[in-house]
Amino acid sequence: MPTVYITVPPAAADEIAETLVEERLAACVNSVSTTSTYRWEGEIHHDDEIVLLAKTTDDAYGELVDRVQTLHPHDVPCIERFDEADVLESFAQWRAESID
Amino acid sequence: MPTVYITVPPAAADEIAETLVEERLAACVNSVSTTSTYRWEGEIHHDDEIVLLAKTTDDAYGELVDRVQTLHPHDVPCIERFDEADVLESFAQWRAESID
Amino acid sequence: MPTVYITVPPAAADEIAETLVEERLAACVNSVSTTSTYRWEGEIHHDDEIVLLAKTTDDAYGELVDRVQTLHPHDVPCIERFDEADVLESFAQWRAESID
Repeated sequence: MPTVYITVPPAAADEIAETLVEERLAACVNSVSTTSTYRWEGEIHHDDEIVLLAKTTDDAYGELVDRVQTLHPHDVPCIERFDEADVLESFAQWRAESID
Repeated sequence: MPTVYITVPPAAADEIAETLVEERLAACVNSVSTTSTYRWEGEIHHDDEIVLLAKTTDDAYGELVDRVQTLHPHDVPCIERFDEADVLESFAQWRAESID
Repeated sequence: MPTVYITVPPAAADEIAETLVEERLAACVNSVSTTSTYRWEGEIHHDDEIVLLAKTTDDAYGELVDRVQTLHPHDVPCIERFDEADVLESFAQWRAESID
């Protein structure tokens, strides 16, 4: 089952997390505060951001990515999929039922 | 080597992290503050939680999962296993020695 | 593409994150506050640390690990590689261009 790693500006984080859960594209979303360090036009920048870790299913993954791209204020958002090697069976079942 | 991703209520986080290390089921545990967004009985909820990232070994993984289920206050906890693609050799060795 | 999971003492975190981006070994680094629980000489310790999540490429991974080992104040740092199962194409492209 995919965990989708998404970085978003703080002002957009709650809306994206709630929308994914509201529209049954994720069973739950863990939001974690982060500072992002990157280079832009030759300068090093530090931005406060939120990492969203969205717990979804194989079936819902594609639609979740499309929805995040629509809602995200940036043109090139960080959206990455990580698949777990194992998951507690009862949690996997709750997760699937929360989405389907 | 597995990193186990576990979400727990803040009041239970320290005890679970310490127990896993104390009982040599994890070499170390990184605790990260998070807000979890999920739906329960039709309503969107936001809970403060802690993500525990427990660094363990293949051999100890099953027992760690059993122990977390015993200690965790919820019936259906988020417990997921992620395997790294590579690890610094000296860290892997320290981790194995801390557990076995 | 690798995400490299590195734990560092807070005093060293900014320098390592900036150096990796400055030297084009990572496209961006997400820094997350954590408490690490581990056992040392029979005692349980809790240290404030930073988890660096460095977004890099297959080609730059080895050099990034070498650089972190040089900069890191500990002899046995936690450095682990996690490969995503999927990534947004435009983000992958930006990431590769930021490094090469």
